[in-house]
Amino acid sequence: MSFLQKIIVLRWGHRVQRDARLTTHVALAARALGASGFILSDISDEGIEASLEKVTKSWGGDFSFEMGQSWKTAITDWREKGGIVVHLTAYGENIQTSNVLGRIRQRGKDILLLVGSQKVPGEFFSEEVSNYNVSIGNQPHSECAALAIFLDRFFDGKELAKKFKKAETKIVPQKRGKKTVVNHGFSRET
Amino acid sequence: MSFLQKIIVLRWGHRVQRDARLTTHVALAARALGASGFILSDISDEGIEASLEKVTKSWGGDFSFEMGQSWKTAITDWREKGGIVVHLTAYGENIQTSNVLGRIRQRGKDILLLVGSQKVPGEFFSEEVSNYNVSIGNQPHSECAALAIFLDRFFDGKELAKKFKKAETKIVPQKRGKKTVVNHGFSRET
Repeated sequence: MSFLQKIIVLRWGHRVQRDARLTTHVALAARALGASGFILSDISDEGIEASLEKVTKSWGGDFSFEMGQSWKTAITDWREKGGIVVHLTAYGENIQTSNVLGRIRQRGKDILLLVGSQKVPGEFFSEEVSNYNVSIGNQPHSECAALAIFLDRFFDGKELAKKFKKAETKIVPQKRGKKTVVNHGFSRET
Repeated sequence: MSFLQKIIVLRWGHRVQRDARLTTHVALAARALGASGFILSDISDEGIEASLEKVTKSWGGDFSFEMGQSWKTAITDWREKGGIVVHLTAYGENIQTSNVLGRIRQRGKDILLLVGSQKVPGEFFSEEVSNYNVSIGNQPHSECAALAIFLDRFFDGKELAKKFKKAETKIVPQKRGKKTVVNHGFSRET
Protein backbone atom coordinates (compact mmCIF):
# COMPACT_ATOMS: atom_id res chain seq x y z
CA MET A 1 0.00 0.00 0.00
CA SER A 2 1.20 3.46 -0.62
CA PHE A 3 -0.79 6.36 0.66
CA LEU A 4 0.21 9.71 -0.79
CA GLN A 5 0.18 11.60 2.49
CA LYS A 6 1.79 9.92 5.46
CA ILE A 7 0.26 10.34 8.92
CA ILE A 8 2.09 10.15 12.25
CA VAL A 9 0.00 10.33 15.43
CA LEU A 10 1.25 12.43 18.34
CA ARG A 11 -0.41 11.57 21.64
CA TRP A 12 -0.28 14.31 24.28
CA GLY A 13 -1.31 14.16 27.93
CA HIS A 14 -0.69 10.50 28.73
CA ARG A 15 -0.64 9.54 32.40
CA VAL A 16 1.26 6.33 33.01
CA GLN A 17 -1.11 4.55 35.38
CA ARG A 18 -4.48 5.92 34.48
CA ASP A 19 -4.22 5.98 30.70
CA ALA A 20 -2.24 2.81 30.06
CA ARG A 21 -4.98 0.92 28.26
CA LEU A 22 -6.45 3.91 26.51
CA THR A 23 -3.15 5.11 25.07
CA THR A 24 -2.33 1.55 24.00
CA HIS A 25 -5.64 1.47 22.16
CA VAL A 26 -4.92 4.82 20.51
CA ALA A 27 -1.54 3.53 19.33
CA LEU A 28 -2.94 0.19 18.11
CA ALA A 29 -5.74 1.99 16.29
CA ALA A 30 -3.19 4.29 14.65
CA ARG A 31 -1.21 1.28 13.44
CA ALA A 32 -4.21 -0.75 12.26
CA LEU A 33 -5.86 2.18 10.52
CA GLY A 34 -3.08 3.31 8.22
CA ALA A 35 -0.89 5.68 10.25
CA SER A 36 2.86 5.23 9.81
CA GLY A 37 3.93 5.83 13.38
CA PHE A 38 3.22 7.10 16.85
CA ILE A 39 4.86 9.61 19.15
CA LEU A 40 4.07 9.55 22.88
CA SER A 41 5.10 13.07 23.81
CA ASP A 42 6.50 14.48 27.05
CA ILE A 43 6.64 11.15 28.86
CA SER A 44 7.95 7.62 28.48
CA ASP A 45 5.99 4.44 29.04
CA GLU A 46 7.90 1.23 28.40
CA GLY A 47 4.75 -0.85 28.80
CA ILE A 48 3.10 0.77 25.83
CA GLU A 49 6.25 0.56 23.75
CA ALA A 50 6.50 -3.17 24.51
CA SER A 51 2.84 -3.76 23.58
CA LEU A 52 3.30 -2.04 20.24
CA GLU A 53 6.52 -3.86 19.45
CA LYS A 54 4.90 -7.17 20.23
CA VAL A 55 1.92 -6.47 17.98
CA THR A 56 4.05 -5.20 15.10
CA LYS A 57 6.36 -8.21 15.35
CA SER A 58 3.48 -10.64 15.21
CA TRP A 59 1.07 -8.82 12.90
CA GLY A 60 3.55 -7.20 10.54
CA GLY A 61 4.01 -3.88 8.82
CA ASP A 62 6.26 -0.95 9.56
CA PHE A 63 5.15 1.26 12.40
CA SER A 64 7.45 3.66 14.17
CA PHE A 65 7.16 4.30 17.89
CA GLU A 66 8.88 7.16 19.68
CA MET A 67 8.44 8.56 23.13
CA GLY A 68 9.74 11.12 25.58
CA GLN A 69 10.33 14.12 23.34
CA SER A 70 8.43 17.32 24.08
CA TRP A 71 5.41 18.10 21.94
CA LYS A 72 6.94 21.47 21.02
CA THR A 73 10.10 19.89 19.68
CA ALA A 74 8.16 17.26 17.75
CA ILE A 75 5.89 19.86 16.17
CA THR A 76 8.67 22.34 15.38
CA ASP A 77 10.73 19.58 13.74
CA TRP A 78 7.75 18.35 11.76
CA ARG A 79 6.81 21.75 10.44
CA GLU A 80 10.41 22.63 9.60
CA LYS A 81 10.53 19.53 7.42
CA GLY A 82 7.47 20.77 5.51
CA GLY A 83 4.77 18.69 7.23
CA ILE A 84 1.45 20.03 8.46
CA VAL A 85 -0.21 19.55 11.84
CA VAL A 86 -3.85 18.57 12.30
CA HIS A 87 -5.27 18.86 15.82
CA LEU A 88 -8.25 16.67 16.65
CA THR A 89 -10.54 18.52 19.06
CA ALA A 90 -14.28 18.67 19.69
CA TYR A 91 -14.03 22.47 19.17
CA GLY A 92 -12.62 22.46 15.65
CA GLU A 93 -14.16 22.47 12.18
CA ASN A 94 -16.60 19.60 11.88
CA ILE A 95 -15.28 16.94 9.49
CA GLN A 96 -18.83 16.19 8.36
CA THR A 97 -20.33 19.66 7.95
CA SER A 98 -17.28 21.60 6.72
CA ASN A 99 -14.84 21.13 3.85
CA VAL A 100 -11.82 20.83 6.16
CA LEU A 101 -10.89 17.30 5.07
CA GLY A 102 -10.73 18.38 1.44
CA ARG A 103 -8.50 21.32 2.32
CA ILE A 104 -6.14 19.06 4.25
CA ARG A 105 -5.98 16.61 1.36
CA GLN A 106 -5.32 19.41 -1.10
CA ARG A 107 -2.16 20.40 0.77
CA GLY A 108 -0.66 17.06 -0.19
CA LYS A 109 1.67 17.20 2.82
CA ASP A 110 2.53 14.62 5.44
CA ILE A 111 0.44 15.05 8.55
CA LEU A 112 1.25 15.06 12.25
CA LEU A 113 -2.08 14.24 13.86
CA LEU A 114 -2.19 15.80 17.31
CA VAL A 115 -4.39 13.82 19.69
CA GLY A 116 -4.82 15.31 23.14
CA SER A 117 -6.87 14.48 26.16
CA GLN A 118 -9.37 16.53 28.14
CA LYS A 119 -7.40 19.66 28.91
CA VAL A 120 -4.92 20.56 26.19
CA PRO A 121 -2.75 23.70 26.24
CA GLY A 122 -4.47 26.65 24.53
CA GLU A 123 -1.48 26.90 22.20
CA PHE A 124 -2.62 23.72 20.45
CA PHE A 125 -5.31 25.78 18.71
CA SER A 126 -2.89 28.44 17.44
CA GLU A 127 -1.49 28.83 13.94
CA GLU A 128 2.00 28.27 15.28
CA VAL A 129 1.05 24.74 16.37
CA SER A 130 -1.88 23.46 14.30
CA ASN A 131 -2.59 24.15 10.67
CA TYR A 132 -6.10 22.76 11.16
CA ASN A 133 -8.33 22.12 14.16
CA VAL A 134 -10.71 19.32 13.24
CA SER A 135 -13.67 17.96 15.17
CA ILE A 136 -15.19 14.53 14.73
CA GLY A 137 -18.60 15.82 15.68
CA ASN A 138 -18.91 18.55 18.28
CA GLN A 139 -19.74 16.34 21.23
CA PRO A 140 -17.34 15.15 23.91
CA HIS A 141 -16.34 11.53 23.27
CA SER A 142 -13.03 9.79 22.83
CA GLU A 143 -9.70 10.57 21.23
CA CYS A 144 -9.51 6.92 20.20
CA ALA A 145 -12.87 7.09 18.40
CA ALA A 146 -12.04 10.47 16.85
CA LEU A 147 -8.70 9.22 15.57
CA ALA A 148 -10.34 6.13 14.06
CA ILE A 149 -12.92 8.11 12.12
CA PHE A 150 -10.36 10.65 10.93
CA LEU A 151 -8.09 7.92 9.57
CA ASP A 152 -10.95 5.94 8.00
CA ARG A 153 -12.21 9.02 6.19
CA PHE A 154 -8.79 10.34 5.26
CA PHE A 155 -7.71 7.04 3.70
CA ASP A 156 -11.17 6.45 2.18
CA GLY A 157 -11.52 3.13 3.96
CA LYS A 158 -8.62 1.62 2.01
CA GLU A 159 -6.61 1.24 5.23
CA LEU A 160 -8.93 -1.60 6.26
CA ALA A 161 -7.86 -3.65 3.25
CA LYS A 162 -4.17 -2.93 3.76
CA LYS A 163 -1.70 -5.84 3.73
CA PHE A 164 0.82 -5.81 6.54
CA LYS A 165 4.17 -7.07 5.31
CA LYS A 166 6.19 -9.72 7.13
CA ALA A 167 3.27 -10.73 9.30
CA GLU A 168 3.75 -13.82 11.39
CA THR A 169 0.02 -14.08 12.04
CA LYS A 170 -2.83 -13.19 9.71
CA ILE A 171 -6.57 -13.37 10.20
CA VAL A 172 -8.67 -14.91 7.46
CA PRO A 173 -12.04 -13.13 7.73
CA GLN A 174 -14.97 -15.49 8.38
CA LYS A 175 -18.70 -15.30 8.82
CA ARG A 176 -18.40 -17.56 11.88
CA GLY A 177 -15.51 -18.46 14.18
CA LYS A 178 -11.85 -17.52 14.18
CA LYS A 179 -9.33 -18.42 11.51
CA THR A 180 -5.68 -17.40 11.52
CA VAL A 181 -2.73 -18.37 9.37
CA VAL A 182 0.69 -18.46 10.98
CA ASN A 183 3.69 -17.95 8.72
CA HIS A 184 6.62 -19.72 10.34
CA GLY A 185 9.01 -18.10 7.88
CA PHE A 186 8.66 -14.97 9.98
CA SER A 187 8.92 -16.52 13.40
CA ARG A 188 10.12 -14.33 16.25
CA GLU A 189 13.49 -16.02 16.17
CA THR A 190 14.41 -14.85 12.67
CA MET B 1 -32.72 13.21 13.78
CA SER B 2 -34.36 9.94 13.06
CA PHE B 3 -32.26 7.03 11.95
CA LEU B 4 -34.25 4.15 10.53
CA GLN B 5 -32.40 1.42 12.40
CA LYS B 6 -31.69 2.05 16.06
CA ILE B 7 -28.41 0.83 17.55
CA ILE B 8 -27.77 -0.08 21.18
CA VAL B 9 -24.20 -0.95 22.18
CA LEU B 10 -23.60 -3.87 24.52
CA ARG B 11 -20.18 -3.82 26.18
CA TRP B 12 -18.94 -7.17 27.45
CA GLY B 13 -15.87 -7.93 29.56
CA HIS B 14 -15.51 -4.72 31.53
CA ARG B 15 -13.21 -4.83 34.55
CA VAL B 16 -14.00 -2.10 37.05
CA GLN B 17 -10.51 -0.85 37.85
CA ARG B 18 -8.58 -1.57 34.73
CA ASP B 19 -11.09 -0.61 32.08
CA ALA B 20 -12.73 2.41 33.70
CA ARG B 21 -11.50 4.97 31.23
CA LEU B 22 -11.71 2.75 28.19
CA THR B 23 -15.31 1.69 28.82
CA THR B 24 -16.26 5.29 29.53
CA HIS B 25 -14.78 6.21 26.15
CA VAL B 26 -16.68 3.40 24.45
CA ALA B 27 -19.94 4.62 26.01
CA LEU B 28 -19.25 8.28 25.19
CA ALA B 29 -18.36 7.36 21.62
CA ALA B 30 -21.58 5.36 21.34
CA ARG B 31 -23.59 8.38 22.50
CA ALA B 32 -21.78 10.94 20.34
CA LEU B 33 -21.84 8.78 17.22
CA GLY B 34 -25.52 8.07 16.93
CA ALA B 35 -26.24 5.04 19.11
CA SER B 36 -29.40 5.22 21.22
CA GLY B 37 -28.10 3.54 24.34
CA PHE B 38 -25.53 1.44 26.12
CA ILE B 39 -25.65 -1.76 28.14
CA LEU B 40 -22.73 -2.66 30.41
CA SER B 41 -23.32 -6.38 30.76
CA ASP B 42 -22.57 -8.78 33.62
CA ILE B 43 -21.25 -6.11 35.96
CA SER B 44 -22.15 -2.75 37.46
CA ASP B 45 -19.95 0.32 37.55
CA GLU B 46 -21.52 3.38 39.14
CA GLY B 47 -18.60 5.56 38.08
CA ILE B 48 -19.30 5.01 34.42
CA GLU B 49 -23.02 5.46 34.89
CA ALA B 50 -22.38 8.80 36.64
CA SER B 51 -20.04 9.99 33.86
CA LEU B 52 -22.60 9.23 31.22
CA GLU B 53 -25.45 10.86 33.12
CA LYS B 54 -23.37 13.97 33.60
CA VAL B 55 -22.49 14.21 29.92
CA THR B 56 -26.05 13.61 28.75
CA LYS B 57 -27.42 16.18 31.19
CA SER B 58 -25.00 18.82 29.99
CA TRP B 59 -24.72 17.95 26.29
CA GLY B 60 -28.27 16.81 25.63
CA GLY B 61 -29.99 14.07 23.71
CA ASP B 62 -31.60 10.85 24.84
CA PHE B 63 -29.21 8.06 25.64
CA SER B 64 -30.15 5.05 27.69
CA PHE B 65 -27.69 3.44 30.09
CA GLU B 66 -28.22 0.05 31.67
CA MET B 67 -25.90 -2.21 33.55
CA GLY B 68 -25.67 -5.46 35.44
CA GLN B 69 -27.81 -7.77 33.34
CA SER B 70 -26.18 -10.84 31.82
CA TRP B 71 -25.21 -10.70 28.18
CA LYS B 72 -27.28 -13.81 27.50
CA THR B 73 -30.43 -12.24 28.89
CA ALA B 74 -29.85 -9.01 27.00
CA ILE B 75 -29.31 -10.83 23.71
CA THR B 76 -32.20 -13.26 24.15
CA ASP B 77 -34.56 -10.38 24.96
CA TRP B 78 -33.31 -8.35 22.02
CA ARG B 79 -33.73 -11.14 19.51
CA GLU B 80 -37.15 -12.09 20.87
CA LYS B 81 -38.27 -8.54 20.20
CA GLY B 82 -37.17 -8.88 16.57
CA GLY B 83 -33.82 -7.12 16.74
CA ILE B 84 -30.58 -8.42 15.25
CA VAL B 85 -27.14 -8.73 16.86
CA VAL B 86 -23.92 -7.57 15.22
CA HIS B 87 -20.68 -8.67 16.87
CA LEU B 88 -17.61 -6.52 16.27
CA THR B 89 -14.54 -8.74 16.11
CA ALA B 90 -11.24 -8.71 14.24
CA TYR B 91 -12.13 -12.21 12.95
CA GLY B 92 -15.39 -11.35 11.23
CA GLU B 93 -16.31 -10.27 7.73
CA ASN B 94 -14.32 -7.18 6.80
CA ILE B 95 -16.55 -4.12 6.59
CA GLN B 96 -14.39 -2.74 3.78
CA THR B 97 -13.81 -5.78 1.59
CA SER B 98 -17.13 -7.60 2.01
CA ASN B 99 -20.78 -6.59 1.52
CA VAL B 100 -21.67 -7.25 5.17
CA LEU B 101 -22.73 -3.67 5.92
CA GLY B 102 -25.19 -3.69 3.02
CA ARG B 103 -26.66 -6.98 4.22
CA ILE B 104 -27.12 -5.59 7.73
CA ARG B 105 -28.80 -2.46 6.37
CA GLN B 106 -31.11 -4.53 4.18
CA ARG B 107 -32.52 -6.29 7.22
CA GLY B 108 -33.97 -2.97 8.38
CA LYS B 109 -33.95 -4.16 12.00
CA ASP B 110 -32.75 -2.52 15.18
CA ILE B 111 -29.24 -3.59 16.07
CA LEU B 112 -27.60 -4.69 19.29
CA LEU B 113 -23.92 -4.03 18.66
CA LEU B 114 -21.87 -6.47 20.71
CA VAL B 115 -18.49 -5.04 21.66
CA GLY B 116 -16.19 -7.37 23.53
CA SER B 117 -12.64 -7.21 24.72
CA GLN B 118 -9.67 -9.46 24.11
CA LYS B 119 -11.06 -12.89 25.00
CA VAL B 120 -14.74 -13.22 24.27
CA PRO B 121 -16.72 -16.46 24.76
CA GLY B 122 -16.70 -18.63 21.64
CA GLU B 123 -20.50 -18.52 21.67
CA PHE B 124 -20.39 -14.88 20.56
CA PHE B 125 -19.55 -16.10 17.06
CA SER B 126 -22.48 -18.53 16.86
CA GLU B 127 -25.77 -18.06 15.03
CA GLU B 128 -27.62 -18.24 18.32
CA VAL B 129 -25.87 -15.08 19.53
CA SER B 130 -24.71 -13.00 16.55
CA ASN B 131 -26.47 -12.58 13.24
CA TYR B 132 -23.29 -11.04 11.84
CA ASN B 133 -19.63 -11.03 12.87
CA VAL B 134 -18.05 -7.87 11.49
CA SER B 135 -14.42 -6.81 11.48
CA ILE B 136 -13.16 -3.26 11.17
CA GLY B 137 -10.04 -4.43 9.41
CA ASN B 138 -8.45 -7.73 10.39
CA GLN B 139 -5.77 -6.36 12.67
CA PRO B 140 -5.90 -6.19 16.45
CA HIS B 141 -6.71 -2.67 17.60
CA SER B 142 -9.41 -1.21 19.80
CA GLU B 143 -13.09 -1.82 20.44
CA CYS B 144 -13.50 1.92 20.81
CA ALA B 145 -11.99 2.59 17.37
CA ALA B 146 -13.92 -0.28 15.81
CA LEU B 147 -17.20 0.94 17.26
CA ALA B 148 -16.54 4.47 15.99
CA ILE B 149 -15.92 3.36 12.41
CA PHE B 150 -18.90 1.02 12.41
CA LEU B 151 -21.24 3.79 13.56
CA ASP B 152 -19.77 6.39 11.19
CA ARG B 153 -20.20 4.07 8.23
CA PHE B 154 -23.58 2.74 9.28
CA PHE B 155 -25.05 6.22 9.70
CA ASP B 156 -23.24 7.55 6.61
CA GLY B 157 -21.55 10.26 8.63
CA LYS B 158 -24.85 11.95 9.40
CA GLU B 159 -24.41 11.22 13.11
CA LEU B 160 -21.69 13.89 13.24
CA ALA B 161 -24.17 16.57 12.25
CA LYS B 162 -26.81 15.38 14.71
CA LYS B 163 -28.48 17.93 17.00
CA PHE B 164 -28.73 16.86 20.62
CA LYS B 165 -31.99 18.09 22.11
CA LYS B 166 -32.19 19.92 25.44
CA ALA B 167 -28.47 20.57 25.53
CA GLU B 168 -27.25 22.89 28.24
CA THR B 169 -23.91 23.32 26.47
CA LYS B 170 -23.19 23.41 22.75
CA ILE B 171 -19.95 23.81 20.86
CA VAL B 172 -19.85 26.24 17.97
CA PRO B 173 -17.21 24.79 15.62
CA GLN B 174 -14.29 27.16 14.96
CA LYS B 175 -11.11 27.21 12.93
CA ARG B 176 -9.24 28.48 16.01
CA GLY B 177 -10.01 28.43 19.72
CA LYS B 178 -12.96 27.17 21.71
CA LYS B 179 -16.48 28.54 21.55
CA THR B 180 -19.43 27.22 23.51
CA VAL B 181 -22.97 28.43 24.00
CA VAL B 182 -24.65 27.75 27.34
CA ASN B 183 -28.42 27.57 27.37
CA HIS B 184 -29.52 28.53 30.86
CA GLY B 185 -33.06 27.43 30.07
CA PHE B 186 -31.81 23.90 30.53
CA SER B 187 -29.75 24.41 33.65
CA ARG B 188 -29.18 21.42 35.91
CA GLU B 189 -31.69 22.74 38.39
CA THR B 190 -34.67 22.58 36.04
